[in-house]
Amino acid sequence: MRPKLTLKQIARELDVSISTVSKALRDSAEISEDTKQKVKAFAKLYNYKPNNIALSLKNRKTKTIGLIVPEIVHHFFTTVIRGIEEYANEKGYHVMVCLSNNSFDKEVINMEMLANGSIDGFILSISKETMLKEDYHHINEVINQGMPVVMFDRVVDQIKCDKVVIDDVEGATKAVQHLLDTGCKKVGLITTPDYINVGKLRTQGYTEALNKNRMPIHEKYILKIEDDSNSEELIKEFVKTEDFDGIFAVNEEYAVQAISALRKTEKEIPEDVSVIGFTDGVISKNFIPKLTTVNQPGTEMGRQAAKLIIDKLEKPETEEEEQYQTIEIKTNLVKRESTR
Amino acid sequence: MRPKLTLKQIARELDVSISTVSKALRDSAEISEDTKQKVKAFAKLYNYKPNNIALSLKNRKTKTIGLIVPEIVHHFFTTVIRGIEEYANEKGYHVMVCLSNNSFDKEVINMEMLANGSIDGFILSISKETMLKEDYHHINEVINQGMPVVMFDRVVDQIKCDKVVIDDVEGATKAVQHLLDTGCKKVGLITTPDYINVGKLRTQGYTEALNKNRMPIHEKYILKIEDDSNSEELIKEFVKTEDFDGIFAVNEEYAVQAISALRKTEKEIPEDVSVIGFTDGVISKNFIPKLTTVNQPGTEMGRQAAKLIIDKLEKPETEEEEQYQTIEIKTNLVKRESTR
Repeated sequence: MRPKLTLKQIARELDVSISTVSKALRDSAEISEDTKQKVKAFAKLYNYKPNNIALSLKNRKTKTIGLIVPEIVHHFFTTVIRGIEEYANEKGYHVMVCLSNNSFDKEVINMEMLANGSIDGFILSISKETMLKEDYHHINEVINQGMPVVMFDRVVDQIKCDKVVIDDVEGATKAVQHLLDTGCKKVGLITTPDYINVGKLRTQGYTEALNKNRMPIHEKYILKIEDDSNSEELIKEFVKTEDFDGIFAVNEEYAVQAISALRKTEKEIPEDVSVIGFTDGVISKNFIPKLTTVNQPGTEMGRQAAKLIIDKLEKPETEEEEQYQTIEIKTNLVKRESTR
Repeated sequence: MRPKLTLKQIARELDVSISTVSKALRDSAEISEDTKQKVKAFAKLYNYKPNNIALSLKNRKTKTIGLIVPEIVHHFFTTVIRGIEEYANEKGYHVMVCLSNNSFDKEVINMEMLANGSIDGFILSISKETMLKEDYHHINEVINQGMPVVMFDRVVDQIKCDKVVIDDVEGATKAVQHLLDTGCKKVGLITTPDYINVGKLRTQGYTEALNKNRMPIHEKYILKIEDDSNSEELIKEFVKTEDFDGIFAVNEEYAVQAISALRKTEKEIPEDVSVIGFTDGVISKNFIPKLTTVNQPGTEMGRQAAKLIIDKLEKPETEEEEQYQTIEIKTNLVKRESTR
């Protein structure tokens, strides 16, 4: 039997991007007529079926949810997966997980693969690259064809669907307010670039807290880390630039790296500098000092995402227009030993 | 459309176990004729197709590998998944991940779901419960039907297939030898019950190292933890029972719990007690002191498992008898600050 032709192979053969092939097969106005004809002719020749979602919808009731996550070596995502699994299993559903590895192309391919009759609906958190490209056609198309999609954590306004997010702004505000309440006067922020929505929202929470307390905001108090592979070096430099007495880091890795760097400059934690992280993972709990941190309830988030999709799958079909909701999960500040 | 009947539903309707249904449908000699007839009649009535694997084999070339792991909130498994993904992607394959949550029933159901035309072969690490029950019919049956299976980490002799394992005995021996070489005279072991094969093998490495150095082995030097939820308490008691100057723990969580417990008894690490863990995860790297640990190369293990299955999938079919191999991945001792 001839192996099934994939989007990727068509893209390679015609020397265009996967996104172009995907859009051309769906007659997108963004693609030139010439390219569309070429792609369609090729797909026809090799008997490629672009539209398996419709087929999958007819056979709905696989009782399986497809889950696409950007990365897996990441405590937060694993707890969300656990929450989704828990709720889905309680309701008699199964879960299949695929990783996008933060790659746009892999995300497109994963969706194609899963929509191919294996699943009834998607839960997903989009890849960094997809956010950077702002190309959401693959997700919008699945939604337009009537397959339920729920997004969590990394969500975007350009996609209309049910969403579950952490209240990142509020979590960050709470953390910075706690630093100020316990006497910090100069609070540094270690965060990610703004195109990562959670980094941006946590940065916003930091500035809101400072504004509310009429504290000045300086660019030099903020470190934005583009590439995690040299975060240790960057943080080491950053903590030396100013005489910080508080540090708020948007994840637990940055927080422990800040503590290690501060210790090398003879600073005591929390006597000289208070440090707060984000995500209550294994590091925060096991580190010495145990980290004060903003807890992201990943399991709860996963359960809510699974509930949203299963409710939609089990709702009798109506002619009414779809209503979407966004559930905001509250964080809470877990006070431990790294703050005064 | 009538929802597809699942193994689980049949089991519930007939008030028997999933394993019984699965075996009855495959005419296992372990099941009484009476039960077999009942199960088969029920399945026929509801048009349940037990044997989708054959169908899947005909349509092979989904270019997708099914992966079943016991748990996901576990750094080691996530690195193995990453390795499998990496290698599979390089070769143009995709990966779908399902979790067994250490449940036998979920493992059986996951295999049924994935074998249903979605994948070309399985990579799996079996659940704790499956090891405890010693019921491997679901895996053996898939293999008998000609679907390639590769097992990793948690493997058993009763299943004949390709396997990838860590050389656990050697890793543990190296760790204990290092403790002895640096002057430890009384080395405690914190491990899991023997039915977890890796716990058993690491315990064996510990005793081999002590034997080789003509050191006595005492039961009271060994703590076997059945239930991780009260490991902290058990470890706190254990480190007080003897005047240990070295501790070898079979995972990094036990190692940091031992360090925290020892500190509460006014012991300094590593001056008074040296501690070595197993698995070089985020905790080991970020803890203070940074942990000396036996590194399990999870990514390498994943890559090897993916290579084994893809090689088999791409090999032209022959009439020769299947040859299976077991690849042993060497560990290495990463010396850091928790040992002298």
